Amino acid sequence: MGLRGRFITFEGIDGVGKTTQIQRVRSWLRDSGWAKTLVVTREPGGTAIGRYLRDVLLQVGGDWAQLDHRAELLLYAADRAQHLSEVVRPSLEDGEWVLCDRFTDSTIAYQGFGRELDMDLVKQSVALATQGLQPDLTLWFDVESEVALERRQVRSVASSKLKEGDRMEANGVAFQNRVRAGFQSLADEFPDRIVRIDAGVPLDALFENVKAALEPRLKQWVEEAG
Amino acid sequence: MGLRGRFITFEGIDGVGKTTQIQRVRSWLRDSGWAKTLVVTREPGGTAIGRYLRDVLLQVGGDWAQLDHRAELLLYAADRAQHLSEVVRPSLEDGEWVLCDRFTDSTIAYQGFGRELDMDLVKQSVALATQGLQPDLTLWFDVESEVALERRQVRSVASSKLKEGDRMEANGVAFQNRVRAGFQSLADEFPDRIVRIDAGVPLDALFENVKAALEPRLKQWVEEAG
Repeated sequence: MGLRGRFITFEGIDGVGKTTQIQRVRSWLRDSGWAKTLVVTREPGGTAIGRYLRDVLLQVGGDWAQLDHRAELLLYAADRAQHLSEVVRPSLEDGEWVLCDRFTDSTIAYQGFGRELDMDLVKQSVALATQGLQPDLTLWFDVESEVALERRQVRSVASSKLKEGDRMEANGVAFQNRVRAGFQSLADEFPDRIVRIDAGVPLDALFENVKAALEPRLKQWVEEAG
Repeated sequence: MGLRGRFITFEGIDGVGKTTQIQRVRSWLRDSGWAKTLVVTREPGGTAIGRYLRDVLLQVGGDWAQLDHRAELLLYAADRAQHLSEVVRPSLEDGEWVLCDRFTDSTIAYQGFGRELDMDLVKQSVALATQGLQPDLTLWFDVESEVALERRQVRSVASSKLKEGDRMEANGVAFQNRVRAGFQSLADEFPDRIVRIDAGVPLDALFENVKAALEPRLKQWVEEAG
């Protein structure tokens, strides 16, 4: 066995458990023989340049003025263009699997739906960065915003580097509900690419849900590869 | 006297003397009473965030991989969006004059004509950053590439922070000729906005050329404001 690499993205609101699941998917794809080589990466910050930009995006330090919304979108796009050029495209061309923690759907859900920035602008910035590249599969980890909020509060110390205003907004249930509605809208728009995973269950059950979503797609890819 | 502020950009290949002329124009506009308050600024790096991004754009440090062309354009655009939001637009709204060392024409001339990146992409990145904002007047300092090169070599120590490859390329006459042709193309496209200044003359004569370009425009603005 061993299939030529695919590009799989992991999406969902914060606190949904996707970062843990990426590691389990990586091990499972490798141990079960589906994948020979895998790259686990993320946006923003999947490259050295991206990690440098991430400090602006997350307002770490914060001795600069408030980041303009348009500049923010363009920085996310720059991070993405560098990431695609340096990590994602070369890996896929080498036949590797790429598992990415957040991609374009997060930009549309967070900046477009959550922050309610101009959607045309959001989509243009995405298109400029990706040149139309789409994931082969997107796993959307979905859970009630209140559940994600509780999980986030458990590890709230880890987010203390965010400025108070950002943290308040990011933690707010109304904001998370808009983001969640954004992911739902994307799932409706791209039903072949985006699979909703019920993430309101314990970790082991969640991984079973993930495998249940992956297995038919893996078999389909084998058939297509002939 | 004293006229509501206008947005004037200073363009041209490196070594053309525009940075010195900006300071002289600033003093002259203020001392002659045309302008009450002026802001002198630049791109990239006209804001704190922009100065942070400038280090990536100029590859200072350089412990990261080569910057992807698309990411580079998006970073210039992010710098510009932040600069417009934080400096240029608020200043103009307050009636101040803004004198800016390089703006969108440099992006088109350097990235589009000089580096020969996809022109559609270059223009899209410019449009995303500016939302269509154009300078009221652009002074294009034009000189033979060989003359600019000689001037640059005199102060080459100052550019030693650039990586060897960048410096070689930026210094090459063929590259500078393409950039110069780009500015010429823009001047042909926007004859009302862009005024060519013959910069192949000594500094004092150059400033006379600058004043000769500015004065009719200032009178026109007074009449329009009348």
